[in-house]
Amino acid sequence: MTYHMLTEATAAGHLGTIAAICDRLGGTPADWVVQEVGDGNLNLVFLVTGPDGGVAVKQALPYVRMVGESWPLPLSRAYYERLALADQARCAPHRVPALVHHDDAMALTVMDYLVPHRTLRGALVEGLRYPRLAEHLAEFLANTLFFTSDLAVPVAQKKARIAAYLGNTAMCRISEDLIFDEPFFDAQMNWHTPGLEDVVSRFQADIPLRLAAQEMKARFLAAPEALLHGDLHTGSVMVTQDDSKVIDPEFAFYGPIGFDVGMIIANLWLAAFAQAGLRPDTPHDDWLVEQADSLWQDFAERFADHWRNIDRADEAGALHALARQDDVLREAAISARLDAIWRDMLGFAGCEIIRRILGLAHVADFESIADVNTRAKCERQALSFGRALLVERDRFPDMAAIRPIIASELVPA
Amino acid sequence: MTYHMLTEATAAGHLGTIAAICDRLGGTPADWVVQEVGDGNLNLVFLVTGPDGGVAVKQALPYVRMVGESWPLPLSRAYYERLALADQARCAPHRVPALVHHDDAMALTVMDYLVPHRTLRGALVEGLRYPRLAEHLAEFLANTLFFTSDLAVPVAQKKARIAAYLGNTAMCRISEDLIFDEPFFDAQMNWHTPGLEDVVSRFQADIPLRLAAQEMKARFLAAPEALLHGDLHTGSVMVTQDDSKVIDPEFAFYGPIGFDVGMIIANLWLAAFAQAGLRPDTPHDDWLVEQADSLWQDFAERFADHWRNIDRADEAGALHALARQDDVLREAAISARLDAIWRDMLGFAGCEIIRRILGLAHVADFESIADVNTRAKCERQALSFGRALLVERDRFPDMAAIRPIIASELVPA
Repeated sequence: MTYHMLTEATAAGHLGTIAAICDRLGGTPADWVVQEVGDGNLNLVFLVTGPDGGVAVKQALPYVRMVGESWPLPLSRAYYERLALADQARCAPHRVPALVHHDDAMALTVMDYLVPHRTLRGALVEGLRYPRLAEHLAEFLANTLFFTSDLAVPVAQKKARIAAYLGNTAMCRISEDLIFDEPFFDAQMNWHTPGLEDVVSRFQADIPLRLAAQEMKARFLAAPEALLHGDLHTGSVMVTQDDSKVIDPEFAFYGPIGFDVGMIIANLWLAAFAQAGLRPDTPHDDWLVEQADSLWQDFAERFADHWRNIDRADEAGALHALARQDDVLREAAISARLDAIWRDMLGFAGCEIIRRILGLAHVADFESIADVNTRAKCERQALSFGRALLVERDRFPDMAAIRPIIASELVPA
Repeated sequence: MTYHMLTEATAAGHLGTIAAICDRLGGTPADWVVQEVGDGNLNLVFLVTGPDGGVAVKQALPYVRMVGESWPLPLSRAYYERLALADQARCAPHRVPALVHHDDAMALTVMDYLVPHRTLRGALVEGLRYPRLAEHLAEFLANTLFFTSDLAVPVAQKKARIAAYLGNTAMCRISEDLIFDEPFFDAQMNWHTPGLEDVVSRFQADIPLRLAAQEMKARFLAAPEALLHGDLHTGSVMVTQDDSKVIDPEFAFYGPIGFDVGMIIANLWLAAFAQAGLRPDTPHDDWLVEQADSLWQDFAERFADHWRNIDRADEAGALHALARQDDVLREAAISARLDAIWRDMLGFAGCEIIRRILGLAHVADFESIADVNTRAKCERQALSFGRALLVERDRFPDMAAIRPIIASELVPA
């Protein structure tokens, strides 16, 4: 089967040739309802339902959907996505949609139809809450990041996995450009809310800030610590009151653990900064900041527990094998490693906050604030915090040092 | 041609079938003189000379030569060696022997016959000096490390090179075990000079030291900054008064820049610590310590100059592309990067010093000190310094902070 783009009209016919999909949907393809719902920047997404169930069908396009054919992007991202979905499912089976079928030539990934899930970002814009969100995200992060790292995987096997993802360069390149470079110069596709011009020009002349962003880029380029999701913002999380699933790992590669952690925490902080603008008449509350806090604490505890629970007799990971026989060394190593992840997390979160306001790809949290002056005010607060995360990291030894700083900004705009 | 081991008797016949070798040697294979001179731990090495010239012929064995068939080691190391020789020759053509021929199936690498070069380690044991040594080693390091890094190479191309070396896991594993793990526990193959028992047991109980060594191991495992030689001790350098060549890159892989720099500097420091024991009646002099100092300064200047000289119009490396348009940012980035390499260098040097005294693979510098008590005294001083490099790195902001510390130890034993 050579590549061709599916449509709402042709999808059922194509999918009807695949036994695993027929089994799940029931009936015949003529009975199936197909709806194209892709609202992301890159791909086609079809929801296909039949008498017995449904599937979500994602097809990569040979270009960036939001821009068009002038920005080509390789179909191979579908291959890396299904590779990552399978690796993540081994580490955190309850936190990712099950893979039903894949077709690399068609750049097609068929997964569980997640109902009644919705995208976390949209839900947060509406002010909704999810009691198990932090716990679920911590589980995804701790499991996928620990169990693909040098702490858990024998070194030759880990290097083979690094190699398996090294070809996903086009997707990494998007992050390299959009997160670490473009927000810090006058790049063509940058845009920002009117009123932030002074911050833009200040940041572009800010040597310590630009240097710190490049140092995070150096980590992004050459620190293959674990398999990363690579694009873990709140638009990559689907939620219900009881469940959370992480989707869309097409940016997957082996990188620094703090990147995934920093991306998702930054997006919770962005949502917090947007609150006062979205709901100026609602009394301020700390729920979002608390979620970021809980997420980190829960991640750190789970990561440490995975480490403590490694079988002492197993060779397992190359790193800290010695610590398995020595509790004091192991606890010192856990503490040092979590400190290093924390520092990376802050730096990557700082980059994410800045690029979501000054770069190409903005977030609905701020864009949904109709009043331009209010939006600019919220964004200005977030930018100031983002800069501090990058250049004044020593001010933030833990979440207790961060919460009051965010809280003091979150007075209604 | 399937693999078979060459001997002094069969080598000329085999090599006589290869035009490039016949051209260089002249005459007929019957005229050639073959001498097996391998004194390393791993391989066969033949020097083959004919009427017109000579070649050095290295053949990997399917096991570790110094141990025997009980320690198998893949022949693929010859493949990685010739890959690295070619990559290094592109970056630093005057600092490596030219590759004349390779045969991956035979695990054979044929290179320039370096005459009248000798191995640097042996020469240093004899107290010989080489006026251009530091300059040449700095050239090798700065050129190979800068021009294979994210500062000089477009990111997709660099990732392809990382992948090309990722299979060299067996050689990396030797370093992982012997440098970072075994010296810090009661490993079976460890040995040490009698009289150091107290240091051995103190180090094995030293949590900060063991943690620092594991943190260097984490960098070794997951920081593919540049193509490393991977085994750059003074036995991998061939010298004359006018020339220095780096040989034996079979441990090559993409790793942290500070590893290669730290290995060679540590070996100069080891030679310095051995001096007082080797020549107790000779007045102390600082030549070796000065060489380490010059090597670092020259490396740092060359690395910075390569950075400054990147074509501003070229896309080149992914990292600090922005800095090409902004001298202030670029100089800040150079300074920050050299600081980071310096810190890595100290840590890796500390590991190397300790493992060469307490691990499996010792160095002739100390082993040539006949008197056991004198040897133990020199080694004890080096061990104390090695530990400081790992756990008190903040004490050493630059070479000026290190020289007096080594010098104070170097009174005749």
